[in-house]
Order: sequence, then C-alpha cells, then structure tokens
Amino acid sequence: MAGSTDVAKVYERFISLVREVHWLNRISDLLSWDQQVMMPPKGVSARSEQYAVLSGLAHDRLAGNEMADLLAHLEAHSDELDEDQRVNVREVRRSHDRARKVPRELIQEIVTTEGLSQKHWLEAKQKDDFSIFAPWLEKMVALKRRVADAIGYEKTPYDPLLDEFEPHTTSEEVAGVLEGLKPALVELVRRIESSSIRPRREILERSFPIAKQEEFGAWIVRLMGFDFEAGRIDRSPHPFCSGANGDVRITTRYKEDYIPASLFGLMHETGHGLYDQGLDPKHEGTPRGFTVSLGVHESQSRLWENLVGRSMHFWRFAFPFLQAF
Amino acid sequence: MAGSTDVAKVYERFISLVREVHWLNRISDLLSWDQQVMMPPKGVSARSEQYAVLSGLAHDRLAGNEMADLLAHLEAHSDELDEDQRVNVREVRRSHDRARKVPRELIQEIVTTEGLSQKHWLEAKQKDDFSIFAPWLEKMVALKRRVADAIGYEKTPYDPLLDEFEPHTTSEEVAGVLEGLKPALVELVRRIESSSIRPRREILERSFPIAKQEEFGAWIVRLMGFDFEAGRIDRSPHPFCSGANGDVRITTRYKEDYIPASLFGLMHETGHGLYDQGLDPKHEGTPRGFTVSLGVHESQSRLWENLVGRSMHFWRFAFPFLQAF
Repeated sequence: MAGSTDVAKVYERFISLVREVHWLNRISDLLSWDQQVMMPPKGVSARSEQYAVLSGLAHDRLAGNEMADLLAHLEAHSDELDEDQRVNVREVRRSHDRARKVPRELIQEIVTTEGLSQKHWLEAKQKDDFSIFAPWLEKMVALKRRVADAIGYEKTPYDPLLDEFEPHTTSEEVAGVLEGLKPALVELVRRIESSSIRPRREILERSFPIAKQEEFGAWIVRLMGFDFEAGRIDRSPHPFCSGANGDVRITTRYKEDYIPASLFGLMHETGHGLYDQGLDPKHEGTPRGFTVSLGVHESQSRLWENLVGRSMHFWRFAFPFLQAF
Repeated sequence: MAGSTDVAKVYERFISLVREVHWLNRISDLLSWDQQVMMPPKGVSARSEQYAVLSGLAHDRLAGNEMADLLAHLEAHSDELDEDQRVNVREVRRSHDRARKVPRELIQEIVTTEGLSQKHWLEAKQKDDFSIFAPWLEKMVALKRRVADAIGYEKTPYDPLLDEFEPHTTSEEVAGVLEGLKPALVELVRRIESSSIRPRREILERSFPIAKQEEFGAWIVRLMGFDFEAGRIDRSPHPFCSGANGDVRITTRYKEDYIPASLFGLMHETGHGLYDQGLDPKHEGTPRGFTVSLGVHESQSRLWENLVGRSMHFWRFAFPFLQAF
C-alpha cells in the first residue's frame, strides 16, 4: 500500500511535467500557425525569440534530471502502473533519451532558424527563385546533421531524424517498401505514357471564383465530419494542419484557375484534422492521447485526399453540388 | 576590473531571465489575442491550460531565488551599471518583490479563470444578460482580493492591484484627481442638459456598409502612422490592442448603423498601437524597452480618439473622404 501511494505520487508529478512539455509544444505550434497565417512580417524576430524560449523550457523538463529520476522510479515499479500509464512511461522514455543527447542550444538554434527561414522560403516561392532559400536550407541540413550526430546512428544520419516522425523505423525499411512498389509504379507510368487515351484536363483549369472555392471547400470539410466548433480553416502559402482535440487549425491556398490546389489541399488537411479532433480528451497532454506517428497521420490525410477525393464515386456525388455553388 | 567583469556576467544572466519572463508574457498576450479573435469555442479549456503553464513558468523566473540573488548582487554593485541597466534592475526589483508575495498557484488560478470566463462574458454580452457573467466576475474579484491580501496594503485592497497598472499610484491620489475634476464636469453636464441646442445625431446612425467601414478605418489608421508591416487589424467583440514593437495587434467591432463604434474604437487602439510600435527595439524584452504604465498608454489612445478623432478639425479634413468611400 505504501509503495502504491508513492508510485501514484511519482506518476502524478511525472504527468504534470509531461503535460507542461505538451502544452509548451502546442503553444509553439500555435505560434507557428500564427506566423504562417496571421503574423505581420516585422514580427519574425520576436517570434523566433519566443520559439527559443518555449523549446528551451520544454527541453529542460523533458531532458532534465528530475525527469530521469521520475522515469527510473516508474520503470522500477511498472507492475504498479496500468496499461495507459505504462504507454506514457515508455513513450516519454523514448523522447527523454533522445532529448538528453541533443544540447538545449542546438534545439534553440533549430527553432529560431526555422522561424527566420520561413520568410525566405516564402519569398523564394513567390519569386520562383530557389537561390533565396538555398542558404537557409543548407543551414537547416547542417543543423539537422548535428542532431543526428548527437543522437548517434549505425548506418545513416537520416535514421535518428526519421525516428522523430516515424518511431522505430529505419531508412532501410522505408527503402524496402518503396523498392517493392517501384516495379509496378514504373510499369504504370509507362502504360499511361504509351496509352492513346488522353484525359481532358480543362475542367480542372476552369476559372472558379475564390470566394466560391472557399464556400464549397468548407461545405466538403463539414460533410467529412470536421467540427467547426473545434477548429477553423484559414489561408496560408502552403496547406497544413496543426493543433489537437478542441482546437484544430487547417489551411489551404487558392488559385482562381485551379480548384484542385485548394480542394485537395483541404481534404488532405481535413484528414489530419479529423484524426486530431478524434484524439481521446481523457488522455490530453500525454503521449497516450497524442499523435502516434506521421505515417499514421498521413494514412488519414491521404485516404481522404486520394481514395475519397480523387475517386469517381465522390465526384458523381459532389459534382452537381460544385456546379450549383 | 575583475569586479566589473563579474557584474557584467551577472547582469547578462539577469537580463536573460528577464527576457524569458518578457517573452512568456508576450506569448500569453498572443494566446489571448488568438482566443478573442480566432480561436474556435472548444479550444477554451486547452487555452486555459496553456495560460497556466506560461504564467507558472514566468512566475518561477521572476519570483525565484536565482532572481533574488541576481538582484541583490546587482544592487550591491549599482555604481558599475549604466542608467538603462539601473532602470531594469529597479523595475524588476518592483515586480520581483510583488511576485514573491503571490503564490504561483494563485496566479495560475487567475489566468485560467480569466481564460474560462471569456466565453461567459461573451455570451452575457450577446444575450444582454449580466447574470451569465456575474458568478465569473465574483470569482475574479475574490481571486484579486486574495492577491491584494498576499501583497498587503495600508488603506484599501485596491491599492496593490492599482499598482500593477499604474506603479506608485494610490486610490487616494486617483480619487483626488477625479474629485478635482468633478465640479467642472457636473457643471458641464448640467449646462448641456439645460441648453436648448440639441445636436443632430442622425449622421452617426446612418447605415454604412461594414466592408466600407473597414476600408475607411484602415485608411485612417494608416494615416495616423500605424505600420501594417508591424501590425494588423482584426475584429473582436470588444476593441483592444496587444503586442509590441514589430507585431502589434489592434481590433475593433462593427455596427452597420453606428460607425463611431468601429472608428473611434480603431483610433483609440491605434493610439495604443503607435506607442507599442514606437518602443525602442534596442531594449526589447526588458522593462527599459516596454510600457511604462496604463496611464501613459491611455494618454496616447485618448489623445487620438478624443482630441483628434472627435475634433472639428479632424472631421473637416476626414468627412469628404468618408463620403467618397
């Protein structure tokens, strides 16, 4: 009994640290949403300072000695934890071990560089001139290599970086999957190229007022089940989805003469958004209540974008509505 | 020489803590802007958690023992500091002493209660039913009384609360100023009421499309000198201004048949915004580079709203433009 009470208290403190890390990261996500959707251009340097503060504090909590002690204690008494609690200990252990190897200053340099590079990326995109962004990309690659070196790897520096998005997965495994798909895909492209059938694409490039694209897009997103009381749609130079549970932000961009740009972007991000709105609020703020991996996330976004959005069945249903908008 | 190097290092650490506190507070401000302007309704509980994390961390830094040691060291060597540095030490000492008396949990309860009460305030406003907001207001008053008790006071609990907005000012002083104004104001109102002249107000209540109000408002704001590269205008249920330096957010609300609501709100908030955009970026993140007091702030907002915006000279200039919009 005394042991259990002790473990319960340790777990409570552990979870309160874990939730602080979670909220600091969600705040960073919101700042990033704001930067891409709302922030005036001269806000960029202050924003980078803010990322540095948040990521530094999150790192202190996740990688610190207190977390190390809490994890060790909980692991030594894992038989007294329930399944959800063991998931949280296991996943925080993963992140903790990883974070401990990466210097706080390196993390801060990465997030401030990301923040500052955003506007150069945007300028490069607008002017269609990669040379504007190239030095920033080089800087980021160099920083990410330092992360890989700090964490360590057996075969390729990409492995420890991949692990951040797709836990327990290696470049070799991914290459195996892609190599397996290659023959059939190459054959498919060859058959398309040599076919005499040429689909008419004019319908995709028909002029469609942006205000109407926005209305139609929101209508589709609502039909897909997205809860607008727990999320919103905005515009950004490139579509993305961020947030979780009761506050999910999705974005898209509009081209008057190419509705697929906005619509499939929206359906893709709504796939992400539905996953995020569906997270179990009981476990909010802990790994047990958060995204599993980017692959699982993409399984939802691509399901909606490609298997639904680009299907004949969907368009047999949706096209008459699109015409009526 | 050894002494100076030491003080320089201590000051450097001091300022890095001070800047962390500053950025945590500015992030809270942005979250609050987002809550009032952008956030979907179901985001409210997560947002309150975020306020609690940020305010707790800011409190730790401001009220902690490290800050106490740094302040004591710098005060003992204040002859080695320049004037700007002494201002920062003096002002952080004020905030530190104050923060040290207020428990972290109380601060966190206040910011989460504020976050949660926002939607009840909005509902009360929309339904014109004060009873919806009353219990939340009572809760806030009770919490603020606890802050006053924690800080201590001689005459009235309002004094330590007033001090947060208008440093070194007491209720008695403010009452003295207001009492001095009272006779002339009472006489003014009496003369207005008994005058036979009745101004025609129809022009204020003329229908004016909201999109046009928005355009005209932005045009005035730009003329006032607001830098849209370093700020933006949005809508919120009640006008406010937040942010600083390169990222100042001002808001207003629109009534189709009452242009003063949006316009004078905008001119008022732009007064705040010009002050914020004019802060010296060299001292960003420190008291030396931040707002002096609410009174000084209001001197700018009311100058623009009342002395400029409600003047005959302004309207002789602006009215033809308003008619042309």
